[in-house]
Amino acid sequence: MSTTSDTPIELRSDNAAGVAPEILAAIATANEGSALAYGGDALTAQLRELVRDVFMQPDANVFPVVSGTAANSLALSALLPPWGSVLCHETAHIFTNEGGATSLFSGGAVMRGLPGTDYKLQPASVQHAFDTTLWDDAHHSQPSVVSITCPTDFGTVYTPAEVRALAILAHSRDLRMHLDGARLANALVAANAAPEELITDAGVDAFSLGATKNGALSTDAIVCFDAAAAEQLTYRLKRSGHVASKMRYQSAQLVAYLTDDLWLRLATQANQAMGALSLGLDDLEVELLSPPTANMLFARVGEPASAALAEAGLLFYGMGNGVIRFVTSFQTTHDDVVEVLRRVERVLRNTRSGQAVR
Amino acid sequence: MSTTSDTPIELRSDNAAGVAPEILAAIATANEGSALAYGGDALTAQLRELVRDVFMQPDANVFPVVSGTAANSLALSALLPPWGSVLCHETAHIFTNEGGATSLFSGGAVMRGLPGTDYKLQPASVQHAFDTTLWDDAHHSQPSVVSITCPTDFGTVYTPAEVRALAILAHSRDLRMHLDGARLANALVAANAAPEELITDAGVDAFSLGATKNGALSTDAIVCFDAAAAEQLTYRLKRSGHVASKMRYQSAQLVAYLTDDLWLRLATQANQAMGALSLGLDDLEVELLSPPTANMLFARVGEPASAALAEAGLLFYGMGNGVIRFVTSFQTTHDDVVEVLRRVERVLRNTRSGQAVR
Amino acid sequence: MSTTSDTPIELRSDNAAGVAPEILAAIATANEGSALAYGGDALTAQLRELVRDVFMQPDANVFPVVSGTAANSLALSALLPPWGSVLCHETAHIFTNEGGATSLFSGGAVMRGLPGTDYKLQPASVQHAFDTTLWDDAHHSQPSVVSITCPTDFGTVYTPAEVRALAILAHSRDLRMHLDGARLANALVAANAAPEELITDAGVDAFSLGATKNGALSTDAIVCFDAAAAEQLTYRLKRSGHVASKMRYQSAQLVAYLTDDLWLRLATQANQAMGALSLGLDDLEVELLSPPTANMLFARVGEPASAALAEAGLLFYGMGNGVIRFVTSFQTTHDDVVEVLRRVERVLRNTRSGQAVR
Amino acid sequence: MSTTSDTPIELRSDNAAGVAPEILAAIATANEGSALAYGGDALTAQLRELVRDVFMQPDANVFPVVSGTAANSLALSALLPPWGSVLCHETAHIFTNEGGATSLFSGGAVMRGLPGTDYKLQPASVQHAFDTTLWDDAHHSQPSVVSITCPTDFGTVYTPAEVRALAILAHSRDLRMHLDGARLANALVAANAAPEELITDAGVDAFSLGATKNGALSTDAIVCFDAAAAEQLTYRLKRSGHVASKMRYQSAQLVAYLTDDLWLRLATQANQAMGALSLGLDDLEVELLSPPTANMLFARVGEPASAALAEAGLLFYGMGNGVIRFVTSFQTTHDDVVEVLRRVERVLRNTRSGQAVR
Repeated sequence: MSTTSDTPIELRSDNAAGVAPEILAAIATANEGSALAYGGDALTAQLRELVRDVFMQPDANVFPVVSGTAANSLALSALLPPWGSVLCHETAHIFTNEGGATSLFSGGAVMRGLPGTDYKLQPASVQHAFDTTLWDDAHHSQPSVVSITCPTDFGTVYTPAEVRALAILAHSRDLRMHLDGARLANALVAANAAPEELITDAGVDAFSLGATKNGALSTDAIVCFDAAAAEQLTYRLKRSGHVASKMRYQSAQLVAYLTDDLWLRLATQANQAMGALSLGLDDLEVELLSPPTANMLFARVGEPASAALAEAGLLFYGMGNGVIRFVTSFQTTHDDVVEVLRRVERVLRNTRSGQAVR
Repeated sequence: MSTTSDTPIELRSDNAAGVAPEILAAIATANEGSALAYGGDALTAQLRELVRDVFMQPDANVFPVVSGTAANSLALSALLPPWGSVLCHETAHIFTNEGGATSLFSGGAVMRGLPGTDYKLQPASVQHAFDTTLWDDAHHSQPSVVSITCPTDFGTVYTPAEVRALAILAHSRDLRMHLDGARLANALVAANAAPEELITDAGVDAFSLGATKNGALSTDAIVCFDAAAAEQLTYRLKRSGHVASKMRYQSAQLVAYLTDDLWLRLATQANQAMGALSLGLDDLEVELLSPPTANMLFARVGEPASAALAEAGLLFYGMGNGVIRFVTSFQTTHDDVVEVLRRVERVLRNTRSGQAVR
Repeated sequence: MSTTSDTPIELRSDNAAGVAPEILAAIATANEGSALAYGGDALTAQLRELVRDVFMQPDANVFPVVSGTAANSLALSALLPPWGSVLCHETAHIFTNEGGATSLFSGGAVMRGLPGTDYKLQPASVQHAFDTTLWDDAHHSQPSVVSITCPTDFGTVYTPAEVRALAILAHSRDLRMHLDGARLANALVAANAAPEELITDAGVDAFSLGATKNGALSTDAIVCFDAAAAEQLTYRLKRSGHVASKMRYQSAQLVAYLTDDLWLRLATQANQAMGALSLGLDDLEVELLSPPTANMLFARVGEPASAALAEAGLLFYGMGNGVIRFVTSFQTTHDDVVEVLRRVERVLRNTRSGQAVR
Repeated sequence: MSTTSDTPIELRSDNAAGVAPEILAAIATANEGSALAYGGDALTAQLRELVRDVFMQPDANVFPVVSGTAANSLALSALLPPWGSVLCHETAHIFTNEGGATSLFSGGAVMRGLPGTDYKLQPASVQHAFDTTLWDDAHHSQPSVVSITCPTDFGTVYTPAEVRALAILAHSRDLRMHLDGARLANALVAANAAPEELITDAGVDAFSLGATKNGALSTDAIVCFDAAAAEQLTYRLKRSGHVASKMRYQSAQLVAYLTDDLWLRLATQANQAMGALSLGLDDLEVELLSPPTANMLFARVGEPASAALAEAGLLFYGMGNGVIRFVTSFQTTHDDVVEVLRRVERVLRNTRSGQAVR
């Protein structure tokens, strides 16, 4: 039975977490002297070099922005014409959760949500979209970008080979390859892949480098390997209000984030907490919708148990039909996991026994 | 003669300044526990109440954003239809410096730059625009908003009575009244006016509440007194990527900024530094384009002196034709002012005597 | 075996047909004297009254435009906000064939293609879309319009009761009801319904009144029962270049079209030709994908027969997989139908017998 | 004194005129048989060849559209990026009379209205705009197109040398040269210039070929010499609803218009009528604002005479302050001119003698 003394434990989203101490320290350190605004500062220059090193792409450009939606939609708007379409999975964040941002910034481009197992886009879906397109016919939006989310919003992760297969297919018809990496560090850790393996060598042309969900303070970035798109972005970001005058404080965060593998260490913490959590839930015979590889899981517990878990102080999202979502972050501790499992066990014992939850 | 040992002194822009310690502390304090994303946190709720108190408008809504361009252009897009026009001064930031942001977000609305003495819009200009408009004629963009910048980008400040006169005129033809307050605190201090005097009682419908140039870390805000526009903003901000998931860190800054008059204290420091600087320059018989009232001045020194001042370690912008701009910030100290004047005197002595600068 | 002496017979599309003599005569008659441009002429005023009579809606407004795409996309843009979505059938012309026009004109609104039998939208699909919408959540485009095509692009026709059921559902959540009537006359004849039955009384708020495919010279129209949307349209049409200066020649066509039931007589001719054609094909045991009710049919004949029919001088579109589309128009004569059937019989005899087609 | 028996004489606008008999005949002739829609017909192919011949540019592409606003704004949208600006005269139709169409279609590009004598843009104005532009700075819209109107909306005409000078200047900074030729034929006749002289050889990259004001039935065209822009136009026109399905009827008009110099003959009639009219007014000592060279004049007659002329059955536009505009068309006859002058003389006699007008 739950008691009101249960301390809340955060499992709603990794964007409910705080800022990593290293990143807060970097902001404080950056707060020395004055610096040219709009990216003319030394930290932003340092960030550019760092991104080029980390992703092993000497021509990479990087643009800090305040949200993942900004990162995705502005990058896409620079990769396609107004009459273009973006081929993505039907559960992609850009398709379902960004309020039409890409259509706004592109001047009316269209998202085409395609099916795919494990919430991932497969070459067969893209090929089918190609086959049913009337190419070069102005009555129809023209496929211009393939965009994938990695990890997906359901916690699954593409392998480098899977990304590469999609990029090859995209490039074969002159489409660009885009990756929404709102949780990119979690994907790299989960896939045990180096940044250049999953991104650069796999053929990605531009991607969102998420940091906010993994310890930064509202700072993500667009990384763009394409010079023409990068030139467009200079204008597109300014005229959409996405160039912070004090950019050095964004760049400071991202420099700290990418230095000494901080981003990977933070993601490892989140992924390991999720690993322990899912093992524990499995032991408790909780039905998981898919084995989590990154920092997110979906479990079917039924509505009564869902309500009881909420009452037991677990903070999480119900997805309807008794399915719940747990997300761990770099702040989720071993003790948190132990306590979550303790409460789940108690709740399940009660609900399974038919006993009143309260 | 300048020496290379001159320490640089920052006068380029107040957005080259750092973050005020109180605001950095507020960020650190906010970094406790987890919080619902996208504005569902307690600090954002607190900010809303605080704004309502400070501006004495119980229905005010506030939306933190990452830049002044975002604040202006998104607010305007919610105040006018795509076929509307914004009447503003021909030197307005929204007209000359935002890369067409308002046209983008509004779906093609038009800015009309009007003349006006002291870089300020006067009722006569607005009335003339009204008189030459073919109202309700679809061939012509329809005036929909009057927008003023206060202080202007040239450092002049509207009085409450001047704002009110424009607002009455705007409202007489069902236009909305907007104010770009990128440096609002500097204006309030300069005008010795309470927030509700210059804004609420004067008839402003929505305004940009600048904080970045006055000690915040890339956080400004839209404040909107109009319920219909505020509802639009909810959607317009999200789909333009301007809703930070970790909004609490923006709200924490703005709460600290507006608490205990911090914003006014910071602006007082900047304005007083400018007051001392302009008095000193006046003593040195430097030609000021207009007597500065806020934290910005323009002086005509000639190109040779301009070059020599730069060489003397003063960081500032040349405006062409030997005119230079100095901007002070909350970080400009008394010692800075003394040192700036010392270097100006030295440079002028040299250039006026015809002596080689080096 | 086909011979090269076979005269081509037009079955590709009703927009390949010519202009009805009555409409050409109306243009010539309108060509007397001069007239105020941009709709300030007497014929446009007469058209407005006529539309109000025909559709029994005294507040109706009508806007002639040059294409069905213009009619649909501009009407929709006046019925929804930029963050709205249009619920339509997944085969709707606005979804698949207009190159993103509605997204362009609305500032980024989204189309949601829904399933539905007989190519028609059913209340269950709309209800499901409602049920899975996160209402009032800015992360998600908000359903704002239900749009149906009648007849559909596959020749099926909604009954007045079906339209009404959708409109009631749409209005229950404050969505607007839109109808793409590119072939509206064919639908009215097929449904044996009066204009006010299928449109006005059924709850349609705005619709495209097609005329081009049924005898006019590139003139369709938006009819709008909503005063606020109509006021928007005045501006939206002008700024999209869709207000013809010599509007009287468009209005003259539409006045002739709607006078003395010309539109219904022309559509009756097209529908009857299709009726005779489909009966004849049925006799020839051709597999029809659905029994045609308006002026369009789809038949599965196989690729060899499809090629042979083309060679036999029939002009039509192949839809892939051996499916062909035949469209009749007001110009399709009884003799045409007889001749088409004669050639189909000949081709089928050859292909079925396995005999070489040539 | 005027009497109510005065027959109205049309001088409001050339778009109040009718359709030339040759063009009506061409429409009737085109109404034979069926033809592929959306420009796949023989007449559209013929038009393309004809335009290439007339303008002596073998790569020219031509796109019929329904209005001058469509022709201008869509062409411009294909010549500049969303962050571009169009340099034009401050009285240009695209700047003052198209309701923001270019901003809509370009995704927020900006018009910059520049001063210039005789309502024409001069190189000095363009050079000044260049000199005051912060090039490659994303805070500022980037000049991308120089656009001129010829004849201007005030009836003045550029010489080929003037166009060439502007084009050379535009091209020197990689801007494109656009010409709004809503009354192009009138300009050619007035300038006594061959089409290739004023357009092709002068360096125009794309232009609006007006026909509606000179005898066509709501059909103008974009002519584009730039292959990349032309490819864009294919999509931009379709998704803005500006591709008429029965394009052959537009093409038929334009073919007739350009054949056997019909366009020049019609314009000659309009210009000659204006010549006779202005000579007669000069004899009557009417103050002309500038000597008319094409088919438009502005005269200062004072408000009482303006009112009396309207009462005398002359149809024209008052421009305010007692200035009136007369426009002649291909339908203005010698008898019309004689009668107009007769009435003007009568009115002036009365108003000058101080006699009551009625």
